[in-house]
Amino acid sequence: MALIVQKYGGTSVGSAERIKNVARRVAQWSARGHQLVVVVSAMAGETNRLIALAKDVQTNPDPRELDVMLSTGEQVTIALLAMALKEQGVQARSYTGGQVKILTDDAHTKARIIAIDEKNIRADLDNGSVVVVAGFQGVDEGGNITTLGRGGSDTTGVALAAALKAHECQIYTDVDGVYTADPRIVPEARRLKTITFEEMLELASLGSKVLQIRSVEFAGKYKVRLRVLSSFEEQGEGTLITFEEDEKMEQPVISGIASNRDEAKITILGVPDRPGIAYQILGPIGDANIDVDMIVQNVGHDGLTDFSFTVNRNDFRKALEILKPVREHIKAREIVSGDSIAKVSIVGVGMRSHAGIASAAFRALAEEGINIQMISTSEIKISVVIDEKYTELAVRVLHKSFNLDQPA
Amino acid sequence: MALIVQKYGGTSVGSAERIKNVARRVAQWSARGHQLVVVVSAMAGETNRLIALAKDVQTNPDPRELDVMLSTGEQVTIALLAMALKEQGVQARSYTGGQVKILTDDAHTKARIIAIDEKNIRADLDNGSVVVVAGFQGVDEGGNITTLGRGGSDTTGVALAAALKAHECQIYTDVDGVYTADPRIVPEARRLKTITFEEMLELASLGSKVLQIRSVEFAGKYKVRLRVLSSFEEQGEGTLITFEEDEKMEQPVISGIASNRDEAKITILGVPDRPGIAYQILGPIGDANIDVDMIVQNVGHDGLTDFSFTVNRNDFRKALEILKPVREHIKAREIVSGDSIAKVSIVGVGMRSHAGIASAAFRALAEEGINIQMISTSEIKISVVIDEKYTELAVRVLHKSFNLDQPA
Repeated sequence: MALIVQKYGGTSVGSAERIKNVARRVAQWSARGHQLVVVVSAMAGETNRLIALAKDVQTNPDPRELDVMLSTGEQVTIALLAMALKEQGVQARSYTGGQVKILTDDAHTKARIIAIDEKNIRADLDNGSVVVVAGFQGVDEGGNITTLGRGGSDTTGVALAAALKAHECQIYTDVDGVYTADPRIVPEARRLKTITFEEMLELASLGSKVLQIRSVEFAGKYKVRLRVLSSFEEQGEGTLITFEEDEKMEQPVISGIASNRDEAKITILGVPDRPGIAYQILGPIGDANIDVDMIVQNVGHDGLTDFSFTVNRNDFRKALEILKPVREHIKAREIVSGDSIAKVSIVGVGMRSHAGIASAAFRALAEEGINIQMISTSEIKISVVIDEKYTELAVRVLHKSFNLDQPA
Repeated sequence: MALIVQKYGGTSVGSAERIKNVARRVAQWSARGHQLVVVVSAMAGETNRLIALAKDVQTNPDPRELDVMLSTGEQVTIALLAMALKEQGVQARSYTGGQVKILTDDAHTKARIIAIDEKNIRADLDNGSVVVVAGFQGVDEGGNITTLGRGGSDTTGVALAAALKAHECQIYTDVDGVYTADPRIVPEARRLKTITFEEMLELASLGSKVLQIRSVEFAGKYKVRLRVLSSFEEQGEGTLITFEEDEKMEQPVISGIASNRDEAKITILGVPDRPGIAYQILGPIGDANIDVDMIVQNVGHDGLTDFSFTVNRNDFRKALEILKPVREHIKAREIVSGDSIAKVSIVGVGMRSHAGIASAAFRALAEEGINIQMISTSEIKISVVIDEKYTELAVRVLHKSFNLDQPA
């Protein structure tokens, strides 16, 4: 018997029928003697419907009022799931974020959790109730309703698991775990039984859409056992995200290959190679709230260097506009750029202790004639920027060259 | 400059366009220097949509969870109206029932207001904000969300006006006031500039659907000036419901004619005329939560009497089932009943001091050959039950015979 937090996303609760399925699954866990806290998102499509309604009324919806409105999406789902559980004879009780209460800061539409009062939930659990909690929402000190931003329901689940010292936080989604690569690109991709937090962080931030990166960070910080499972399959143990490397016996060198087509690259050629130049270039970009991902600067010669970085494609035009006067000011030669690129990354904690991973990767790409435009590395990751048209080919080649299709 | 509470119903806030119209009207009142508290219902159709969703999941939706769900309807509207006001440059802030807080008992789906904390609202008003409050909802002592039942938004408006000692509570609806009769039946019907609370209570309970009876009772109890206005007309002063008769100069004898086709009549013939017999008949009816409206018992003779009453048509079959064994037990002769009846009522405080109103009414009906099946009177009302097919004719005849088409 254990205390388990389960989180079901918008697709898993997208209709009355699916909510009944979730209730059946929760009822099974409950019947096995476990204590259950279930976090749910708004029904699929509901949040977008509400945002559209808000924009019909106010061009730029007021953040405080938008949160009042958006929080109703999860509020409807918690009531429906509690009803569905009662219909199956399971004692259940719903809580909004405010009722729990989940205290956040006052940054409307992107609030951060400060504290969770677990008193009422604990009492209900001890009374034998399943507790159903609205994800994505909380209240600030003044009692104003706040939301945590997209994907915030994962964070609610992890935060509740941390506050309640739950045995495990299970994230139910429409995939049955974390794979060595996107199975739509690599049919031979294998589900990983375990993955470390560091690897998951790299994969989450690299475009593997299984988990929100914030929730993974949160789980790592509070040492919450996190498991990704499919809400559409009855069996299956999903992927466990472990916070201790030694939970993984026989550590493989590489865990997975991720790819991402959301970025664009910008290179400033012939930049005078002097201290402070990176700040002069990236300062104005940051001031415009544009996130920069990869940054590459090579060793310069003749007092000049080339400076490259990538931004989200949505910010590409804006970034170029900002850089025009910057280039003149710093007397750089030229700006070249492109948005038909892809970033392909190799992730694995085993990389630390194995030389030759990078060269093996580069050789595999070279053999297929794929040109590498930028390279960036961390302790457990190698990312390369290539022409977008080679994305699938590169992922498949790397997956095969590291034998990821073979059981670990 | 005055503090005014305005309430807009579901039709008045039924679309983004209509919410913008409400915002324009509120902005005009605000521009004239008034302090405004605006109570809104859920957008038309939303409550029914949510109830249908609940019934898809649980055959008899759990009342606590149903309230969690239904309260989201008004929560969406308050956010939208606050946004629409801001879009027009008016400072505004929304409150759910729980945020106000509006404390109720724990009778889910039909809770009653116990107390209202007006502190936060007062502070916002003093800061120059329009305050937008969700109608129909509150919280109980335990922090559970409650709803006040259908029409509860009117009650929220009146209760807020009482708590804030507002100058006036304005109920905006799809009619422009209270009429001497239903204008669809009597084209000559006139809008009343004022009506007393007692008259309004009789009219509200008699099927004039302008105001919820609970809100009128509440307004009478706390001496809240209540005004009914149209939300679709720019001008017009509607109908003021006064709590002092002397506000009405030149008191007319009759204020209006109401009709109602929601009832069915049941008569038990040959009832032994002894003490306690009325209780023996109506006790089981009340135990089954069936409301009884008119009750008529005539002077008996030969130790026997006839006992008649009316119930809502929805409860008609159930009431007959209950009475079968009762009739045998009390040894009454026979039960006769019918559901194609109408109740037509003449209402007016002037009736008290004028003899002959009843006989004038009965003569007018007789001249048209309309048979009267039951009669019931109060100090300010005469109700008759007639065959349903004569409803419109009876209303028109009475309206004309008391000269209600002539300006008072």
